Amino acid sequence: MKGFFLTVEGCEGSGKSTQLKLLSARLDGAGIDYILTREPGGSDIAERIRAIILDGKNTAMCDECEALLYAAARVQHLKEKVIPALEAGKLVVCDRYVDSSLAYQGYARGLGEEYVASINAFALKECPPDLTLFLNIPPDRAFERKHGADRDDRMEQLGLPFHMRVYEGYLALMAKYPRICPVDCSGSKAQTSQKIWDILVSRGVVKGQ
Amino acid sequence: MKGFFLTVEGCEGSGKSTQLKLLSARLDGAGIDYILTREPGGSDIAERIRAIILDGKNTAMCDECEALLYAAARVQHLKEKVIPALEAGKLVVCDRYVDSSLAYQGYARGLGEEYVASINAFALKECPPDLTLFLNIPPDRAFERKHGADRDDRMEQLGLPFHMRVYEGYLALMAKYPRICPVDCSGSKAQTSQKIWDILVSRGVVKGQ
Repeated sequence: MKGFFLTVEGCEGSGKSTQLKLLSARLDGAGIDYILTREPGGSDIAERIRAIILDGKNTAMCDECEALLYAAARVQHLKEKVIPALEAGKLVVCDRYVDSSLAYQGYARGLGEEYVASINAFALKECPPDLTLFLNIPPDRAFERKHGADRDDRMEQLGLPFHMRVYEGYLALMAKYPRICPVDCSGSKAQTSQKIWDILVSRGVVKGQ
Repeated sequence: MKGFFLTVEGCEGSGKSTQLKLLSARLDGAGIDYILTREPGGSDIAERIRAIILDGKNTAMCDECEALLYAAARVQHLKEKVIPALEAGKLVVCDRYVDSSLAYQGYARGLGEEYVASINAFALKECPPDLTLFLNIPPDRAFERKHGADRDDRMEQLGLPFHMRVYEGYLALMAKYPRICPVDCSGSKAQTSQKIWDILVSRGVVKGQ
């Protein structure tokens, strides 16, 4: 496909939302033809699937069912939105993608990377990211940084040990897939944003400014 | 698991519903502790998934999404209903199961058996049927038999070539999985029912009468 598929990953509290806003502003400023999306991303079918996953009443939902529903919403979002944009030659920036399933369901929930990869075979084989940015900050450090400020409730709900497993999952994926590029998040928001931009320049995704 | 997991498969028009009713009556008469179920089988979550699959408005749904949703409903039905019944030592009779996905989505829709098997890995590895009865009548013969009577609209909608591919899919699966046992359906309903009962007796699932 003619476009470029960039996915952005990170644990809870990694500052992913902030960095995507900053990146979006820079892409706007540079006049890049891009879309910023996330699953279910405005696909009606994918939205309906997502509603089942997120419905707090579905406490009986098993981990495998959850992973399959994420994969179903993903393939629909890909076909309805991502692939057409890539075929039109656009840069597609996707907030979370298949690596989230591999890290959260495969590693942290214990379903195994192989199983989660197999149910996401379409995404991994037919539409793999050209580049994945991993905002590399361990959840315990991200948690400290947020403590006393806008502390994240979801983080507390699932607990730090769960999020540390997610983080370890991401590290394992990074060792396996060269497309996953870590981004050092130890500095300020502006510094991290500049690092992301420098990576995109060095990969030829955008031109230097 | 202590119970016995029997699945029943067949193409449209194969007489599966009729045979399941007749089997159910015989199991009742023999005092067998069994449940007769089908996906989504009364699991609230699986029912909601099924509603998305069957919603006529979802014309944009891609084949992969459909296959993943069937697999999601399947694993939830397994965990909520089938596995507990098997663990309680019951005979579980399930109207269609993973072979339907392999034949319909894998073969007839062209997704490939390997892909459909991989997304149904939980069903195939953790809860494979002990025995699968395949009501073996080619759709063109079943169609002829129904012609002029209660001709099936769904059959016409998808067309005979589609159903012939499903049938060929079942034949390929039968060659691969020894657990799939063909049932000759060329005789009367009562004769087919007796053949099914004889198979169950010969496998020790029920006692001869």
